[in-house]
Amino acid sequence: SLEPNIQQLDLDIESIEKGGFEHFMLKEIYEQPRSIHDTFRGRVSTNPFDIHLGGLYNVLPKLVEAKRIILIGCGTSWHAALVGEYLIEDLARIPVEVEYASEFRYRNPIINKDDIVIAISQSGETADTLAAIRLAKEAGALVLGICNVVGSSIPRETDGGVYTHAGPEIGVASTKAFTAQVTVLVMMAILLGKKKGTLTQEKYEELINELNLVPDKIEKILLSETIVKEISERFKDARNFLYLGRGYYFPVALEGALKLKEISYIHAEGYPAAEMKHGPIALIDDTMPVVVIATKDSSYEKIVSNVQEVKARKGVVIAIVTEGDTTIKEMADYTIEIPEAGEVVGSLLSVVPLQLLAYHIAVLRGCDVDQPRNLAKSVTVE
Amino acid sequence: SLEPNIQQLDLDIESIEKGGFEHFMLKEIYEQPRSIHDTFRGRVSTNPFDIHLGGLYNVLPKLVEAKRIILIGCGTSWHAALVGEYLIEDLARIPVEVEYASEFRYRNPIINKDDIVIAISQSGETADTLAAIRLAKEAGALVLGICNVVGSSIPRETDGGVYTHAGPEIGVASTKAFTAQVTVLVMMAILLGKKKGTLTQEKYEELINELNLVPDKIEKILLSETIVKEISERFKDARNFLYLGRGYYFPVALEGALKLKEISYIHAEGYPAAEMKHGPIALIDDTMPVVVIATKDSSYEKIVSNVQEVKARKGVVIAIVTEGDTTIKEMADYTIEIPEAGEVVGSLLSVVPLQLLAYHIAVLRGCDVDQPRNLAKSVTVE
Repeated sequence: SLEPNIQQLDLDIESIEKGGFEHFMLKEIYEQPRSIHDTFRGRVSTNPFDIHLGGLYNVLPKLVEAKRIILIGCGTSWHAALVGEYLIEDLARIPVEVEYASEFRYRNPIINKDDIVIAISQSGETADTLAAIRLAKEAGALVLGICNVVGSSIPRETDGGVYTHAGPEIGVASTKAFTAQVTVLVMMAILLGKKKGTLTQEKYEELINELNLVPDKIEKILLSETIVKEISERFKDARNFLYLGRGYYFPVALEGALKLKEISYIHAEGYPAAEMKHGPIALIDDTMPVVVIATKDSSYEKIVSNVQEVKARKGVVIAIVTEGDTTIKEMADYTIEIPEAGEVVGSLLSVVPLQLLAYHIAVLRGCDVDQPRNLAKSVTVE
Repeated sequence: SLEPNIQQLDLDIESIEKGGFEHFMLKEIYEQPRSIHDTFRGRVSTNPFDIHLGGLYNVLPKLVEAKRIILIGCGTSWHAALVGEYLIEDLARIPVEVEYASEFRYRNPIINKDDIVIAISQSGETADTLAAIRLAKEAGALVLGICNVVGSSIPRETDGGVYTHAGPEIGVASTKAFTAQVTVLVMMAILLGKKKGTLTQEKYEELINELNLVPDKIEKILLSETIVKEISERFKDARNFLYLGRGYYFPVALEGALKLKEISYIHAEGYPAAEMKHGPIALIDDTMPVVVIATKDSSYEKIVSNVQEVKARKGVVIAIVTEGDTTIKEMADYTIEIPEAGEVVGSLLSVVPLQLLAYHIAVLRGCDVDQPRNLAKSVTVE
């Protein structure tokens, strides 16, 4: 006979209360300095400089030797995977392929025995992702998980992995789970870069220091909520939004657009900024708000010209800029400043104002932020 | 002193006239049976069954041994690259990575000496794509091109490639260039599958026969223009559209959405159908038309449930279905039939009604179809 296998989940009632916030989503946005810290606490040290991810310990030699890493996810987790691709390719020089779980599982994918498949899922129960890792396991690949819910199906069925430690996420639109997933990917990429020798000791230490500063920098970003509220008032009746970013900030643009879609029901779309000229720029007129992640990074000059292009078509630009920026400020209609940081942790910072923007627009439109229409928290059906 | 290098282009005045059509775009949509035929004519034979691509002859051994193929493009060419990924992985079992040219060139990409980089560009002059292949060449990769304009920069700077032979494309929104690019990728994937032994002789012959039937099947699809016109009347004032597809039809969904964006300025977005549950489904209400590519293929059952999900949220469904389909017809609000065909050539057929839909909606809205606002035919700036 079939024995039920009862798993005790590690939740307590306080941690799932709203704690004075109007919505779980806002509480979870504000929790990010802590949830990110919880995700790297005990895993990253500066004296001596070290990264230790227990769930990867046994598979680390294989990861270092991997010919290819395939990152799999759905929705927000797929966006984290895109950030992961940039991180791992950039820091550890291992080719990374990102796949939608639902596409991967049905398309007779190429999975080699020396491939490593990493599934990303907040709930650890996403049906398509779970099916994808079963397929990968059958093909003989090493399968790892990056999940938030301890003891959920994906961690139980994988050969290793890293929990995100973001704490329970109740809002249907994922916020702190995303930044925790990216935090794990940052740690993994730095660790792999160190082990592979693609990062110098100096760069390794610099990146660990950067990661340690992220919680305080997010605290600072959260202080700009008033500005974000004002911008939200101005755009709450917009029908459409474009979100643009380059490099590490392209997935952030996708994620910002998805938040707005999910909870405000405004049609928002993310694009790599340079692709705008190949079509989406035709949409731009004076009714189209364009959110641009325009921080001072390697592609700053390029993003400045993208902002000019949007302004030349009379688009309304809301720019996320680095503190002290003057060039973009002169061109953009609205700017939100975030502290200076390297690109490796930049997505963790720049996504926060976009979460707040989606939240406030949705609240102003009278939407049910924590339970948006048509959506479930975990998609456990195919 | 600098000697100007004058290249004589092979254009004649008749071939660039509108030939009785109201717009170049419509003419080019209607030319597709011929342009696709021109693209495979002399390259594919059935007696004996053979595929011969002269521009790949010297590099074929390297292609067959490739560990990884990287397909690069922008806009519509990027969509063709996505179809190419499915084709080459499916038929020849070589891992394929698709990259936006503008992202690839700025992100310190991993390019190995045994990688093959294939640039796709109608004009052969796309600035970001050209810069990307220069980078790939410097890294020692073999670089190939799939271009339409003979003697343009990309073909001149690559180690080989295949011209699309679509003839001059004047409409800014690419139509026949896209189907010609996909035709080349179909031939390449079949050829590589045969050489690698991943395709049986039987399957090889079946696929060549399928390709040969495409021009006649497109002729048949073009007869449904009246139905497409009626649907366009109904939706010409829509503010937003979603386009959904799975597998080979996911890039078709992206391409259909891009056409509508480019020439009608309606905000249309393409999604892999299963990702809808992870966010975009929140957008769906009775004002949201959803175009679904729902032909009878390996994912038919899944797409049926996606259509049900959209209908359950009162979305309006326009479905591209296989001739004789009854299941989807009962659920969808509008259907456009296309002839039965295998998935390998399915994108060539299913994109045609989407081109017509974008065209007629744009004309009904009074847009300048051949010269949409803000867009250039070839993006020769970065």
